[in-house]
Amino acid sequence: MLAAAVAFAPAPAPAQSTPQPAAQKSERYRVVLQVSDADPAKWNLALNNARNVQEDLGKGNVDVEIVAYGPGLNMLKSDSKVADRLAQALDNNIGLMACENTMRNTKVQKSDMYSGISYVDAGVVHIMKRQREGWAYVRP
Amino acid sequence: MLAAAVAFAPAPAPAQSTPQPAAQKSERYRVVLQVSDADPAKWNLALNNARNVQEDLGKGNVDVEIVAYGPGLNMLKSDSKVADRLAQALDNNIGLMACENTMRNTKVQKSDMYSGISYVDAGVVHIMKRQREGWAYVRP
Amino acid sequence: MLAAAVAFAPAPAPAQSTPQPAAQKSERYRVVLQVSDADPAKWNLALNNARNVQEDLGKGNVDVEIVAYGPGLNMLKSDSKVADRLAQALDNNIGLMACENTMRNTKVQKSDMYSGISYVDAGVVHIMKRQREGWAYVRP
Repeated sequence: MLAAAVAFAPAPAPAQSTPQPAAQKSERYRVVLQVSDADPAKWNLALNNARNVQEDLGKGNVDVEIVAYGPGLNMLKSDSKVADRLAQALDNNIGLMACENTMRNTKVQKSDMYSGISYVDAGVVHIMKRQREGWAYVRP
Repeated sequence: MLAAAVAFAPAPAPAQSTPQPAAQKSERYRVVLQVSDADPAKWNLALNNARNVQEDLGKGNVDVEIVAYGPGLNMLKSDSKVADRLAQALDNNIGLMACENTMRNTKVQKSDMYSGISYVDAGVVHIMKRQREGWAYVRP
Repeated sequence: MLAAAVAFAPAPAPAQSTPQPAAQKSERYRVVLQVSDADPAKWNLALNNARNVQEDLGKGNVDVEIVAYGPGLNMLKSDSKVADRLAQALDNNIGLMACENTMRNTKVQKSDMYSGISYVDAGVVHIMKRQREGWAYVRP
């Protein structure tokens, strides 16, 4: 990987480190968790996963997002069966993102959603982009 | 990767840009969607995901494959409950790939499968290879 | 990897090949399979996936791990419904890793677990780290 040019050349070329993928360069961890099931047990599992990741790696060392789409959208509605845990997740800087595509297709308004969450145009595309940016992907 | 041979030229080595993973270099998006459940609702969700990805990113800017294996193989049989949507997916250049390992293990012939789909020797290995090539992975 | 440039050779700097992610540098395949469902059919599917990956790529060319967490932990208990297949998996050098977070939360002891398996502090964090190291991720 290294080519040293030594011809009356006073300054050696500096050593180069092996190129690393961007994801391995940073010490910061990032994970996007997908919720696409209409199953409150899965919603709790995703919230547990998010919390465990923060506890294990240190809340300041990791970015965590939960993306809800398709039948998983209900997780983030104001009448969600895990609504009492959503405030806590937001307090802990866990991103909660609802898929607006799913909302349009199922006639759901933002006024139906839990207050304080975020929105992405298409959940699956957001997940693709995060992977491209080096985020880990976990589907509980 | 760099060989700078500059005789009589005591110039400093040129600055190198930060290496990026291959996936981030190209503007083209690529995603492999996995179907391994015997659940027609999941099959519809995977087909919806594929369509949404094309609509959101532009059909010409993204490669989309759906890989069916294990109990998910039934999605791609000629008598599939989503058979009417498979022709449309193929028309839209969405790759539909059936796992031949699963077919062998369950005594399914190509004549049992929906016409026009593709085949991979082992669905899970195909998914691994796609990830290695930089494709995003989504399991609806 | 070292190219020595000969003096008096004013050759132009050669073009640089595109840096590749570490995962693509090695010929070795690596995959982490996630089990987070309380469904023995999923456990069998994960074990089938692991076996197929080894058969397709060659047992010596691939690292395979199955990480069980949440409701999937039961897969790796000594009284698991797939216990008869776990010994064979271990014989084939398939890593079987149980999540100690889940064990603590559900009051499960190592003495309750199948003998010979491995342990990780948090299953989801282990999966994140593997992806960061370039392993493929498959959630059957």
